[in-house]
Amino acid sequence: MRGWVFTETHVPLKMVEKQDPVVVPGEVIIDVKATGLCHSDVAALEDPGWMNLITAAPLYMGHECAGVITEVGEGVTGFKVGDRVGVCPIAKSTGEAIGYQRDGGYATKCLVPAECLVPIPDNVSFEQGAAATDAGMTAYHAMFRIGGAKKGMKVGVIGIGGLGQFAARMAVLRGCEVYAAEINPQARELGKELGIKEVYENVSDLAEVGCELIVDYAGFGSTTAQALEAVAKFGRVVVVGMGKLEATISTYTLILKQAQVLGSNGGDTEDIKEVYDFFATGMLNLQLSTIPFDEIKDGLDRLKRGEVKGRLVAVL
Amino acid sequence: MRGWVFTETHVPLKMVEKQDPVVVPGEVIIDVKATGLCHSDVAALEDPGWMNLITAAPLYMGHECAGVITEVGEGVTGFKVGDRVGVCPIAKSTGEAIGYQRDGGYATKCLVPAECLVPIPDNVSFEQGAAATDAGMTAYHAMFRIGGAKKGMKVGVIGIGGLGQFAARMAVLRGCEVYAAEINPQARELGKELGIKEVYENVSDLAEVGCELIVDYAGFGSTTAQALEAVAKFGRVVVVGMGKLEATISTYTLILKQAQVLGSNGGDTEDIKEVYDFFATGMLNLQLSTIPFDEIKDGLDRLKRGEVKGRLVAVL
Repeated sequence: MRGWVFTETHVPLKMVEKQDPVVVPGEVIIDVKATGLCHSDVAALEDPGWMNLITAAPLYMGHECAGVITEVGEGVTGFKVGDRVGVCPIAKSTGEAIGYQRDGGYATKCLVPAECLVPIPDNVSFEQGAAATDAGMTAYHAMFRIGGAKKGMKVGVIGIGGLGQFAARMAVLRGCEVYAAEINPQARELGKELGIKEVYENVSDLAEVGCELIVDYAGFGSTTAQALEAVAKFGRVVVVGMGKLEATISTYTLILKQAQVLGSNGGDTEDIKEVYDFFATGMLNLQLSTIPFDEIKDGLDRLKRGEVKGRLVAVL
Repeated sequence: MRGWVFTETHVPLKMVEKQDPVVVPGEVIIDVKATGLCHSDVAALEDPGWMNLITAAPLYMGHECAGVITEVGEGVTGFKVGDRVGVCPIAKSTGEAIGYQRDGGYATKCLVPAECLVPIPDNVSFEQGAAATDAGMTAYHAMFRIGGAKKGMKVGVIGIGGLGQFAARMAVLRGCEVYAAEINPQARELGKELGIKEVYENVSDLAEVGCELIVDYAGFGSTTAQALEAVAKFGRVVVVGMGKLEATISTYTLILKQAQVLGSNGGDTEDIKEVYDFFATGMLNLQLSTIPFDEIKDGLDRLKRGEVKGRLVAVL
């Protein structure tokens, strides 16, 4: 097998050949067919803080992949060789994540716990199947599981990036009245194509809507604070993005509105299944740019330079 | 009738005689028997910002009172002359509060909407009946309605003041495992008498407990931020106190813990009823200091100078 190895911060990824993985009880091996490129990986290459998390380095990076099962370990039920599956990045029972604490999906093959698998519907592509596992899952979890978005609800989305476009489109499809704030004019245009009622430049502009829920996929501190000012009485602000690691919020507003500020982190196989169901309708027509597997290193550089629109997925 | 009139910020309260109120449909008149002195009133006398709220000034101040019904307006059901009642400060249907948008309880008589009334059980005193309406209600609402405190739950209380002592004692009586943080050594001693397991000096010390819920009755910004650091994974921090009007919180912690920061504001007659039920058990033995009605002005000065332990209630 071949794959892109992360060694440590500031050291470029390197294509390395290793022996094929050997299947173990409770796990399966997949031939990776698509693997998403995530901003977290760009961050890990730049910020030494991530070394606390990537405890198994050097390892194959990548935590957003989909493929076909080629071997099934002892005790695995419900999955067989040939199944098309997506992989939830984190295993619930151990807390271990592929690409962080064990080899990940920037590789031709990947050994994964069966508990992480989600079957991909026939009419959903591997690229969609991969993008749904981290970007889709995290976007869904924040909007619906933590945020409680429901049909008819006015919801706000901050940032129409990799996660925000997923969330906004899914909320539109679920019948929410969706508004957004995005500083990038190009992304604002994209937002309109997704069925968003109005895409504002500033978060504070959302105040005129009176959203019951605003999900902050940017997380620049000021965006969270402004979301709290803009949200309706008894409203909730869900924070997902980590553009900055702190926010100065008005507790006066929090108290007078009896508002809620809620953290959302990742998700689980249930979320991924929901995202696949959205894809299966044919209506979750998001922008996914594909590149060849051999260009993952360059792809991360493009991501870093902000040259990527939508989600970037490498295909094999 | 006589009462203490608030005119504007920086102008001392003045005892003024007015004509007795005339009952109107849907409302009742009470002879005030006890009326609690609140830090908000001290603040209103010092900070011109409150003038936006006290729209009916000059008026009788006071929003925490209990008494006996002397007249019942047309259409009022469920209450009769002679009933002992507490008065919820805010009327749900109009949003109007006594002592702010209409005459309040620093007076011998008070005209109040019937929707604000809560019957006081026989074995609950008027002093308790009064203190329960704002301090008790607000403490209860934050701890139980917003915070969701339940039997067996580990909860933290920040600040053993007028509200914090109420909340801590009620949580103890409901079977919670209660911890607290309080900078004042005397108040820490009081905390132990309330049945709190451990009263720490610093909020950050609560981290060793792993509370599922921490309620911040101080609200000094840093207390809220430290509560978020100290609370358990998936935990909630409820903010009630307005010691400062903003807090710089770690969104990194919020996200990784999937924690919640929730605002709580006031409460309603349901909360007051619950507090009365606690008082009726005889176990909610809180520190209430009483003064004569004619000393309300001096009482607010004592409150301002921090000379009052527990809740100060004027009796008539």
